[in-house]
Amino acid sequence: MANDSSLSTNFELVENLFSDRNYEINISIPEFTCVCPRTGQPDFAIIEINYIPNKSIVELKSLKLYLQQYRDVGIFHETVTNKILDDFRRACQPRKIEVFGRFNTRGGINTIVNVRWPE
Amino acid sequence: MANDSSLSTNFELVENLFSDRNYEINISIPEFTCVCPRTGQPDFAIIEINYIPNKSIVELKSLKLYLQQYRDVGIFHETVTNKILDDFRRACQPRKIEVFGRFNTRGGINTIVNVRWPE
Amino acid sequence: MANDSSLSTNFELVENLFSDRNYEINISIPEFTCVCPRTGQPDFAIIEINYIPNKSIVELKSLKLYLQQYRDVGIFHETVTNKILDDFRRACQPRKIEVFGRFNTRGGINTIVNVRWPE
Amino acid sequence: MANDSSLSTNFELVENLFSDRNYEINISIPEFTCVCPRTGQPDFAIIEINYIPNKSIVELKSLKLYLQQYRDVGIFHETVTNKILDDFRRACQPRKIEVFGRFNTRGGINTIVNVRWPE
Amino acid sequence: MANDSSLSTNFELVENLFSDRNYEINISIPEFTCVCPRTGQPDFAIIEINYIPNKSIVELKSLKLYLQQYRDVGIFHETVTNKILDDFRRACQPRKIEVFGRFNTRGGINTIVNVRWPE
Amino acid sequence: MANDSSLSTNFELVENLFSDRNYEINISIPEFTCVCPRTGQPDFAIIEINYIPNKSIVELKSLKLYLQQYRDVGIFHETVTNKILDDFRRACQPRKIEVFGRFNTRGGINTIVNVRWPE
Amino acid sequence: MANDSSLSTNFELVENLFSDRNYEINISIPEFTCVCPRTGQPDFAIIEINYIPNKSIVELKSLKLYLQQYRDVGIFHETVTNKILDDFRRACQPRKIEVFGRFNTRGGINTIVNVRWPE
Amino acid sequence: MANDSSLSTNFELVENLFSDRNYEINISIPEFTCVCPRTGQPDFAIIEINYIPNKSIVELKSLKLYLQQYRDVGIFHETVTNKILDDFRRACQPRKIEVFGRFNTRGGINTIVNVRWPE
Amino acid sequence: MANDSSLSTNFELVENLFSDRNYEINISIPEFTCVCPRTGQPDFAIIEINYIPNKSIVELKSLKLYLQQYRDVGIFHETVTNKILDDFRRACQPRKIEVFGRFNTRGGINTIVNVRWPE
Amino acid sequence: MANDSSLSTNFELVENLFSDRNYEINISIPEFTCVCPRTGQPDFAIIEINYIPNKSIVELKSLKLYLQQYRDVGIFHETVTNKILDDFRRACQPRKIEVFGRFNTRGGINTIVNVRWPE
Repeated sequence: MANDSSLSTNFELVENLFSDRNYEINISIPEFTCVCPRTGQPDFAIIEINYIPNKSIVELKSLKLYLQQYRDVGIFHETVTNKILDDFRRACQPRKIEVFGRFNTRGGINTIVNVRWPE
Repeated sequence: MANDSSLSTNFELVENLFSDRNYEINISIPEFTCVCPRTGQPDFAIIEINYIPNKSIVELKSLKLYLQQYRDVGIFHETVTNKILDDFRRACQPRKIEVFGRFNTRGGINTIVNVRWPE
Repeated sequence: MANDSSLSTNFELVENLFSDRNYEINISIPEFTCVCPRTGQPDFAIIEINYIPNKSIVELKSLKLYLQQYRDVGIFHETVTNKILDDFRRACQPRKIEVFGRFNTRGGINTIVNVRWPE
Repeated sequence: MANDSSLSTNFELVENLFSDRNYEINISIPEFTCVCPRTGQPDFAIIEINYIPNKSIVELKSLKLYLQQYRDVGIFHETVTNKILDDFRRACQPRKIEVFGRFNTRGGINTIVNVRWPE
Repeated sequence: MANDSSLSTNFELVENLFSDRNYEINISIPEFTCVCPRTGQPDFAIIEINYIPNKSIVELKSLKLYLQQYRDVGIFHETVTNKILDDFRRACQPRKIEVFGRFNTRGGINTIVNVRWPE
Repeated sequence: MANDSSLSTNFELVENLFSDRNYEINISIPEFTCVCPRTGQPDFAIIEINYIPNKSIVELKSLKLYLQQYRDVGIFHETVTNKILDDFRRACQPRKIEVFGRFNTRGGINTIVNVRWPE
Repeated sequence: MANDSSLSTNFELVENLFSDRNYEINISIPEFTCVCPRTGQPDFAIIEINYIPNKSIVELKSLKLYLQQYRDVGIFHETVTNKILDDFRRACQPRKIEVFGRFNTRGGINTIVNVRWPE
Repeated sequence: MANDSSLSTNFELVENLFSDRNYEINISIPEFTCVCPRTGQPDFAIIEINYIPNKSIVELKSLKLYLQQYRDVGIFHETVTNKILDDFRRACQPRKIEVFGRFNTRGGINTIVNVRWPE
Repeated sequence: MANDSSLSTNFELVENLFSDRNYEINISIPEFTCVCPRTGQPDFAIIEINYIPNKSIVELKSLKLYLQQYRDVGIFHETVTNKILDDFRRACQPRKIEVFGRFNTRGGINTIVNVRWPE
Repeated sequence: MANDSSLSTNFELVENLFSDRNYEINISIPEFTCVCPRTGQPDFAIIEINYIPNKSIVELKSLKLYLQQYRDVGIFHETVTNKILDDFRRACQPRKIEVFGRFNTRGGINTIVNVRWPE
């Protein structure tokens, strides 16, 4: 199982041609998978990222490749959702960002983690 | 039928690694069952817990075991929903918490109980 | 056809064990039926009652029996929805209450009546 | 509570202008209500009637009035569904008929009764 | 109210380029309206036509214009569904045809009429 | 094609027995049809009217008859939605009113017009 | 955990008044729960029973009480579904019977067991 | 592949007969297609335009023709959504406008771009 | 507008490793667009292809490129659905094939064309 | 990327206690993932297995572990679906088996592979 500190956060950035205004981009990735750090079993989630870009937009393919790196990483629901927000924010410097991690049922329980910046 | 004062409230706590920010955790447990204290018949509900953690997160398996204890307890809809909020709050000290008890149809009537803290 | 002034409003009340806090109870009764006062034809509706209890909770079976009394009563949509709010409020003295009457299609028209107290 | 032997079965019949061919008429009545003969509580159902007419078609208003007569009749799910088939068949002499009684949840149990003629 | 014998049945036909094989065309027209011959009130339906063409296909715009003629015609559910089948069949000579008239709720009753040729 | 200035606006009014309070009535009419003034083709819409009554309630049958008058009237989506609001408001003097016209797809485009008073 | 050989199979039977014909009764019980014999964890399922009665019909309340007995029984999905069919068949002697056990997700896997008699 | 600077923005305008009030028009166009400027592959989206008109309303057919021009244009999701807002605003001078571009899944990722004026 | 005789039918074929058995492949392409040969307006459809492969499987990317060629082709619903079946069959020689063309609403009418081989 | 010949097929088997009859077990695993052998990108699917057991039932946890082995295997949709059928059949010797692989959209195309034994 890989360590999450080794993840690349090289998002490709595209210039935001409309940085004079605030508009929202909502991205939904229904094919996210990582590994439960306790049981070693795969976890599955829908990741949603909503942001208002500033100077840059994250190119979608590089976002997909960033998220695919979690495939073999053992990481808790709360940690991965917060970390995606932090990595995305550091790379693309949005004016506003919100991340949802909607995790599949485990032991009859569904969990959604929702992080926002600024709060 | 068991008495509810005998329920264990030993939630396992996990350190919240992102306690510097407010973020929300939504948990949905569609497999809750207890017993109607009047008729002795089983009741079924979906329990939803939404909270903003402070220093600790409740580990999901211990939450599941806590809720399974109600399986043989005779308890009213309003009481059980309030009690889950109180027990959860005492154990994990969240910044904010809300509990929904969505109970199945009885006598052609559906009931939802919704408790929040702080109000 | 019965007269609505003869309806019993003897709701059974249960002590609210959590009257120190405001929490909400949502009740949905999809099997309501009364009679159209103009045509004498049966009307069908879903009645929803949302309230914040004060000292008392309305026991559900007595609520069901109260609502079944309308089965042979000729009464307008607006009147019955307002009257349910008034009767419920008088009996149980909630802090807040809202009633929806969602009536089935008549002549290709659906009607919903929604009353709140306090407004 | 009324006795079901006193029900009028005076369906109004309309001439079937296309009796030279077999075609199907499907009627769905989502507003059926009768009374449980054991508990005296109201029961609710969706009644579906599918038939291939012979010489006559049943006029819908008279069908509605026929079904409304059950409003105060204490009768079991199986009995009422079979009886509707028998009464409809006797009145309108269809080539084929099928009746579904789809009853609302009672005690956490849903029931559908389905009768066909000829089998 | 117009008389239905005055309806034009001038469907525009298009040559079926694949008449060497049997294939099916399913057409659904959710915007059909005619008039109830008893009450004079408008009726609304979804008309579905499924057919296997022989030498000709019915052009859709001419089908739409044909069906729009019923807008002011007083006609029973069973009659209009059978008549659409007869008119369509006479004009386009399909190998097989089926018509559904799915009529909106009237007096709490939904009706579907389904005619097939050959039976 | 009729002219819309000839429409009768004789809504039948019923006394509002609960005019001491503000409550809401939501009416949905899924069977509205008028005519496109450019193409002469029928248009179909769902009309929704939400209002808080003052002294009077509009009787539903008279509302239905009012709306049926548009069946042969050539009128734009925006005009008919605004006109229904104006006519309803003039007749019944509600405290608040909102009208939605939800029009069916034309040329691959859906349109909803939403008017409110007071704004 | 109870042993399943100790379950009472005292279904209350009601005379089938229409035993001269074959008709179908479909029963759905969405509130079934038993225990996993391996993990001791609760399992949840929807049980569906479809049968053609012969001389007797199973009274629904006694069926509910029969099924509630599994609440503390450790039993596999396949065993419980087959056993319900066997017990029901022995008690009520239907002409035909089919049982579905639709079990909730466990470890990301849903299971449905479907048994029929005669095959 | 065409260049987007060559697009005609000749929207046909219709006089707003109700410019004395603020009301909203919601337009949804589920059949939008353009081309990905990186891969040359077609993109598909639902475009939604919500606006409060001032003196003019955009005629729907001219809007459709405007949007069809993108069929062969290579353009990013964010650019096309912002450009539709700008072109629409310049032509029709609404009091308020909002555009959603809801793009189909690409590489397992859905994107929605949402632009508003004034912000 | 392009002519359909100029379409390339160079499907890339992959060896079917399980040609000793009959199994089914269902492909659904919700992003099909062509042009109406009468009006020159774009048409949109979902194309479904179900087949039992013999020696070869059609590689999906080449299928996508084949279907994208229709983007500027003026062609009738019936023609394009039959032609897709013919081209696919000629290229891949399946044991069985069925094509559905599910076309979007035009003038308030939906059309589905369904072709099978062998019939 | 792992090679699929190295996959363990050690399914744990449980004795079928009802092997005297034919009954069906339907298993649905919505969390299947493997890798596209061409692009190296992850693929996602819902795997469904329906079988009639003979002497043995496949224990669900071992099935889950078997399927998780594909997480890093590069394999085509058709191959993986056929291989699951072959491995399952070899291990558990069912009387009948059917496997569906319902794969997520790639390049705007959905694919379902469906294999049965015996055909």
